[in-house]
Amino acid sequence: MAIITLTSDWGDSDYYAAAVKGRILQELPDAVIVDITHRIPPFDSTRAAYILRNAYHNFPEGSVHIIGLNTEETLENPHLVALYDGHYFIGADDGIFSLIFEKEPEKVVILEVPQENELYSFSSRDRFAKAAIMLSQGSSIEALGEVHDSLIQKISFEPTSNKQGIRGMITHIDPYENMITNISKKLFNDVIGSKPFELNIKRYICRKISDSYSDVGEGELLCLFGSNNLLQIALNRANAASLLGVSLKDSVHVVLVPSKKEGDRPPLF
Amino acid sequence: MAIITLTSDWGDSDYYAAAVKGRILQELPDAVIVDITHRIPPFDSTRAAYILRNAYHNFPEGSVHIIGLNTEETLENPHLVALYDGHYFIGADDGIFSLIFEKEPEKVVILEVPQENELYSFSSRDRFAKAAIMLSQGSSIEALGEVHDSLIQKISFEPTSNKQGIRGMITHIDPYENMITNISKKLFNDVIGSKPFELNIKRYICRKISDSYSDVGEGELLCLFGSNNLLQIALNRANAASLLGVSLKDSVHVVLVPSKKEGDRPPLF
Amino acid sequence: MAIITLTSDWGDSDYYAAAVKGRILQELPDAVIVDITHRIPPFDSTRAAYILRNAYHNFPEGSVHIIGLNTEETLENPHLVALYDGHYFIGADDGIFSLIFEKEPEKVVILEVPQENELYSFSSRDRFAKAAIMLSQGSSIEALGEVHDSLIQKISFEPTSNKQGIRGMITHIDPYENMITNISKKLFNDVIGSKPFELNIKRYICRKISDSYSDVGEGELLCLFGSNNLLQIALNRANAASLLGVSLKDSVHVVLVPSKKEGDRPPLF
Repeated sequence: MAIITLTSDWGDSDYYAAAVKGRILQELPDAVIVDITHRIPPFDSTRAAYILRNAYHNFPEGSVHIIGLNTEETLENPHLVALYDGHYFIGADDGIFSLIFEKEPEKVVILEVPQENELYSFSSRDRFAKAAIMLSQGSSIEALGEVHDSLIQKISFEPTSNKQGIRGMITHIDPYENMITNISKKLFNDVIGSKPFELNIKRYICRKISDSYSDVGEGELLCLFGSNNLLQIALNRANAASLLGVSLKDSVHVVLVPSKKEGDRPPLF
Repeated sequence: MAIITLTSDWGDSDYYAAAVKGRILQELPDAVIVDITHRIPPFDSTRAAYILRNAYHNFPEGSVHIIGLNTEETLENPHLVALYDGHYFIGADDGIFSLIFEKEPEKVVILEVPQENELYSFSSRDRFAKAAIMLSQGSSIEALGEVHDSLIQKISFEPTSNKQGIRGMITHIDPYENMITNISKKLFNDVIGSKPFELNIKRYICRKISDSYSDVGEGELLCLFGSNNLLQIALNRANAASLLGVSLKDSVHVVLVPSKKEGDRPPLF
Repeated sequence: MAIITLTSDWGDSDYYAAAVKGRILQELPDAVIVDITHRIPPFDSTRAAYILRNAYHNFPEGSVHIIGLNTEETLENPHLVALYDGHYFIGADDGIFSLIFEKEPEKVVILEVPQENELYSFSSRDRFAKAAIMLSQGSSIEALGEVHDSLIQKISFEPTSNKQGIRGMITHIDPYENMITNISKKLFNDVIGSKPFELNIKRYICRKISDSYSDVGEGELLCLFGSNNLLQIALNRANAASLLGVSLKDSVHVVLVPSKKEGDRPPLF
């Protein structure tokens, strides 16, 4: 059973997503086509990469993921197909592949399947869908084009750490306005572990990792590791980002504090 | 063929819905997964219940409905699976089950399927999806956990009536801004029947039940029974709620009027 | 495999789309149901026609397209089923069929399948879904009702042309704010061909047809033929319509210019 996902900046109000689905169904009437989201802000590869990085691994291996943004093929931004972690990704390489992948992909080829027509503004329908169909029908990735060695490297903001703590940033704000950082559970455990700490964001402080949002009272600040194993900062049942005045890329510091007697300094939260 | 629906407050712009779908497709690649909506306002169980109450019965019996909001499990809000009207509902009991069901459910169990990981912030993916898969594969509801007797009762605003008429309220405003009341066709027929009446909402009056929106001129006020058998108040092809200044929970009175000669008092609409 | 698409003004936040899908799945549990969009502005047949005209032909022949807006049946606006270009369209005839079809449909019948209940406000669920199921199960279109000869003709704004050039208009603004005109590639080639021209929109001028958005620098004006073969005007990676102050129905002139020596008059873009 072919599983093909779509991630794009087409929005939900035009015919673009339906056109791609129709084209796939022409060849694969029983394909399972799943919208990841079409509400990526126009051209925002960084956000698309975040979404796809967190979504793809939930799907079965062998799924094909079409990336429908910034799809214009140029000499600098070739159309690629990558096999990574058992999944196929099809898109134009504007750096997005480097943002999705945490390690080297298993294989990358330049897409050489011909465009269906002489129009180049809708590659997702006229070329990527074709490649997705071929992969779903059992084509090897090598059948789609020549092996390609170098992906464009887009810098994702990685947290830095030393013996005093971790310096990270807000990389995503979700629909609840939970603020997701780039600090992974692994990094946190390596640097902080179970020692006392202070997390600082703007002028707010959090001293404890919660297990769930409801660990604190309604409207109160908490930190927890989300379902993607990234540290997030939230208000229980309230819109953290706007209430705390936090924006994307704001910095977050987690610092080790010397243990001291209870009561020396009252927690702010 | 497994049919699984999703209702949530995740919005359409993040990876949450796709993650749940992917997880289901891993086990059930030919499952039919239907989004009811992901645009419930955050944490709004009342609205989610309205949507689900009106949607579920259109699906075949045996369908599984995942409720993806307020999903954190606590002692007070356990994860439940309910069999009601031949359909399965999976969610945390914050009272939403009592708002969806109009009579006693056939069976309710506490969900004892283990969470997939030690993160508790995404139960829809890490626990509810698993239960939905098991039910779709033929598990009995009893296989998912111990029978549970008491649902949290959330009060839904029921209309009151006497010999003079019915006092109800606006419980939903739809995308056309039609204003849906909690007055059912049955209650209306019992109390008002075909006798002359005045429906009052704010300072507007309606004296007739229409069969369709186009019974009145464009922009004019009308009352009709919607496809969910609830009395609704609308403007033909116009945004009733904002034009009339009506909000959720505004009251609606339907009063019997003594029949009188035509012309004694001119209708306002 | 039955393929049924839905186009409507129901929005994404209520139960309407799910209800139609559930009803179809009751009879056809393995139907492929594709949302084209539910975000047509309320009652906007012109926009729905644009979307459907550009979407339908991507689907396999034999697909059934339900039109879920302005669905109330009246004597003037009967419920019809049309076979056009190998596809089935079901809706109320408020003129939308004439806007979707570029030539005479193969066959049109008045829908005589009875409504499922005495409520007439949700024909998409209570009648159109039934017709879609019958067609998907192999019913002939003639089995659904009597042949119907005349479609309501809604005037779509067609471009005019003479030896000097083409006068068209903006008929659609897409989610990127690309401005799509009603000037087809064929008309452009017939009138302008490869001769020098000036396209005028508001006080902006474009003198070249680009192959892709990235033919020009970021934020610069360009003209190209979109994936629907219509001439569109865009800014590369910027919101053309709002930045240029262009609205739907604004006029666009393409005029032939006498060829002259380079440099006589500097291009504005």
